[in-house]
Amino acid sequence: MEKNLILASASPRRSELLSIAGYEFEIKPSNAEEIEKGIPAKELAMKNALAKARDIYKTTNENSVVIGADTVVCLGDMVLGKPKNEENAKEMLKSLSGSEHSVVTGFAVVAQGKEEVGFCETVVKFRNLSEKEIDCYVATKECNDKAGAYGIQERASLFVEGIKGDYFNVMGLPVASLYPILERCGVLPRWQNILG
Amino acid sequence: MEKNLILASASPRRSELLSIAGYEFEIKPSNAEEIEKGIPAKELAMKNALAKARDIYKTTNENSVVIGADTVVCLGDMVLGKPKNEENAKEMLKSLSGSEHSVVTGFAVVAQGKEEVGFCETVVKFRNLSEKEIDCYVATKECNDKAGAYGIQERASLFVEGIKGDYFNVMGLPVASLYPILERCGVLPRWQNILG
Repeated sequence: MEKNLILASASPRRSELLSIAGYEFEIKPSNAEEIEKGIPAKELAMKNALAKARDIYKTTNENSVVIGADTVVCLGDMVLGKPKNEENAKEMLKSLSGSEHSVVTGFAVVAQGKEEVGFCETVVKFRNLSEKEIDCYVATKECNDKAGAYGIQERASLFVEGIKGDYFNVMGLPVASLYPILERCGVLPRWQNILG
Repeated sequence: MEKNLILASASPRRSELLSIAGYEFEIKPSNAEEIEKGIPAKELAMKNALAKARDIYKTTNENSVVIGADTVVCLGDMVLGKPKNEENAKEMLKSLSGSEHSVVTGFAVVAQGKEEVGFCETVVKFRNLSEKEIDCYVATKECNDKAGAYGIQERASLFVEGIKGDYFNVMGLPVASLYPILERCGVLPRWQNILG
């Protein structure tokens, strides 16, 4: 029986990554309530990812394979979510300037009789940013809906000296980590079915 | 006097990266002859990058700032260029499977009275690829015009366990390394001119 892959996320970046990797899927954003603090970042991201995937899985049929994900930016013990306003975005970028932070994406795959949960962590090093650069960047509004107040795949590509780990994880979905899990669920990217 | 930024490369990926970072520029591909072997990979990439930038600079006026770049994939002492045919592409991917290789982009910026040359190196770790995956990937033709026979930003995103260094460098242009050089030449991304 053919499997029906579903992405339980409204993020255009996640859907772009899954699509570029060659998967066919539907998008069904989840309204599951997200935890924002109180437990360590990795647990939090995994818990939110699983809640999103379960929330959608229960509305589907037994052929569905549902992916949930949650991305957080960590600076030491601090978890940076999406900025609340321009001032908040500037503070976040100042705190990231010239140092390393880590980006954690928790992911969950829910299918018939099976739940798999994991996380992927990438270290990101920012160069020193001038106050003017930060002000100009915040003025572009690119930071608005993004954890840590930056989008690595857009203008903020200029801020990043280097990373250690999976780049796509920083964009919101560690596709290479999901590949073997999806394969176990009977889901392959379209192009890997070409040769039968 | 306003500077005129020119990218001396036909690569759609390089032009995409420069554009996403917010630069305004023209594209003028260079026909400068490229060296393919005989000197160490980093020197080779820098030499080719400078040759491309010079080749275009001499056709322009004194307000021009020209970027040249050359990307090579290195596995130990071996330099992998673009694959010659399907068999060659499969061999390259087999040799990269399950191990680390490095991607070096040499870059050069040529402007009035100034030439700056450098390189950026990123280590890329592939997971183990099955023969079927390699066959299917080569059948997509995504590998055809790419050094090392893969495109990290497309289907091959599924092959990469992680990287150390600049992701955009693997795509062909280390924009964060170019930023300070371009700034010294009087060229800023458009969005950094917003606040005057």
